[in-house]
Amino acid sequence: MSMYVVGHKIPDSDSICGAIALAYLKNQIGEPAKASRLGEPSPETQFILDRFGFEAPELKMSYAGEEVYIVDHSELTQAPDDIAEATIVGIVDHHKLGDLTTSTPLECWIRPVGCSNTVIKMMYDFYNVDIPKDIAGIMLCAILSDTVIFKSPTCTTADIRCVEALAEIAGVEDFKALGMEMFKVKSAVGGTAPRDLVMRDFKDFNMNGNLVGIGQLEVVDLSVFDNIKADLEADIAALKAEGNRHTVMLLLTDIMKEGSELLIVSDDAELSKKAYDIATENGRAWLPGVLSRKKQVVPPLQGVFA
Amino acid sequence: MSMYVVGHKIPDSDSICGAIALAYLKNQIGEPAKASRLGEPSPETQFILDRFGFEAPELKMSYAGEEVYIVDHSELTQAPDDIAEATIVGIVDHHKLGDLTTSTPLECWIRPVGCSNTVIKMMYDFYNVDIPKDIAGIMLCAILSDTVIFKSPTCTTADIRCVEALAEIAGVEDFKALGMEMFKVKSAVGGTAPRDLVMRDFKDFNMNGNLVGIGQLEVVDLSVFDNIKADLEADIAALKAEGNRHTVMLLLTDIMKEGSELLIVSDDAELSKKAYDIATENGRAWLPGVLSRKKQVVPPLQGVFA
Repeated sequence: MSMYVVGHKIPDSDSICGAIALAYLKNQIGEPAKASRLGEPSPETQFILDRFGFEAPELKMSYAGEEVYIVDHSELTQAPDDIAEATIVGIVDHHKLGDLTTSTPLECWIRPVGCSNTVIKMMYDFYNVDIPKDIAGIMLCAILSDTVIFKSPTCTTADIRCVEALAEIAGVEDFKALGMEMFKVKSAVGGTAPRDLVMRDFKDFNMNGNLVGIGQLEVVDLSVFDNIKADLEADIAALKAEGNRHTVMLLLTDIMKEGSELLIVSDDAELSKKAYDIATENGRAWLPGVLSRKKQVVPPLQGVFA
Repeated sequence: MSMYVVGHKIPDSDSICGAIALAYLKNQIGEPAKASRLGEPSPETQFILDRFGFEAPELKMSYAGEEVYIVDHSELTQAPDDIAEATIVGIVDHHKLGDLTTSTPLECWIRPVGCSNTVIKMMYDFYNVDIPKDIAGIMLCAILSDTVIFKSPTCTTADIRCVEALAEIAGVEDFKALGMEMFKVKSAVGGTAPRDLVMRDFKDFNMNGNLVGIGQLEVVDLSVFDNIKADLEADIAALKAEGNRHTVMLLLTDIMKEGSELLIVSDDAELSKKAYDIATENGRAWLPGVLSRKKQVVPPLQGVFA
């Protein structure tokens, strides 16, 4: 029986590239595997796939009766809707431990590093499997994306060493230049519908019974949002109502200035103040130094809802 | 800050020996750690500690405000009562993924093998740390215990290779003889109160909102239970009532005949029939070939409660 290797809903580059990289590794060690995805590749991910000559993995939403290897999350809200009817054979991740459970033993490769692809590189090393040049390229880009070219506080020495090793394999001489090229693609938000922008990198979290959705857009200059910010705010308000969410947040992250503008709609008007000690004005706040949803935005929120 | 390394409640040899072995490893790689335990060592575990010259780790029930590395489980019911007030920095385990969650990223070394100590050996190999002779001895015994000297269906090639390597390091020439000596210690049930026997290796599981407690006693000959079986049955009935449990099961496992006598009290008189296709008579049933709670007893139950 072949397993599916799949990342989270609203897939980012780590989910898509990680699924491809891990499926290849599993096949090499005699465990048949097929990469799949739970949504459309973002422009950034498409840039990476094109650059290294990959097709996007199969779009597959239902996994009942299948064996599944989960990439880049361990949260029910981010997993396939029918994951309870599938057999989870493994998880590779770098986030907090979520609420996925299994009824059979599995393997979990979870490490507090900046990117799942850094963990997948450790798996290649463990099994002593050579990484093909093109797969090294997409893994490298996924790590540069998740670590914001090493600027994110989630970035660890392991991520940096991993990128250096993958760049060598992929024959990428200036990986920082490649990273900036990638973030410029990511910054092109013009002509995209507000909902598509909000959902481009959006995750729902179950916080002590409250559904909290958090989107993030990372750009090289926040001025790209000047004309569309009101539309984005209207859209997150709509998203909150549609999903019966307690809160929807959108982080507009400036990777050069190294901070994020927070747009927020919430049942609790004091939420930003409580979590980050920064009050919002008209649903907006500047969070200096905040680049990482996982490390800087989610944990204080968990604390408020605990 | 020093972390505590702790196994599950009602600790078995894997929990105690794993905590000692992992704490040593963590200290060697510059992460201060201290082994602890959530209960008294069983006679089997005491035999292992005595044989290789170890004291039992510190008994410590409360971990609020501490950093904790969890060994041999990922279930809230098996963790310290105040684990929600601690920071879980890692989990090493070989069971199904339970309902522990965290609010920060962590490391998880979880593999579908026969024993957590087999995974800990992989961690030593990953960090390239030599295993001291005495620690190799207790790790070896934990694996022989969990795999029932390789007879359990949970036993994998990785466990066998691991025992062989550890026996070499520990200077144990005949590890199977050591295993039998250990199981004979485990089989000495005379003179022990029924509650102490039932609780010797007892785990509570949350099955879709129903609390199910499952104890197991592994012996070399079931006749040791002839005179105390009625007392054991009375005790599991009491345990069910006291804990407001849906079901309490006690597996009397004959490691030579390779099967288990099931004693059961349950709100569902048909539970054994539904889960194992074997009806009980007066709350008893013989389950041929059943040696493993984790692999043969729990998953079918999960299916019934799903």
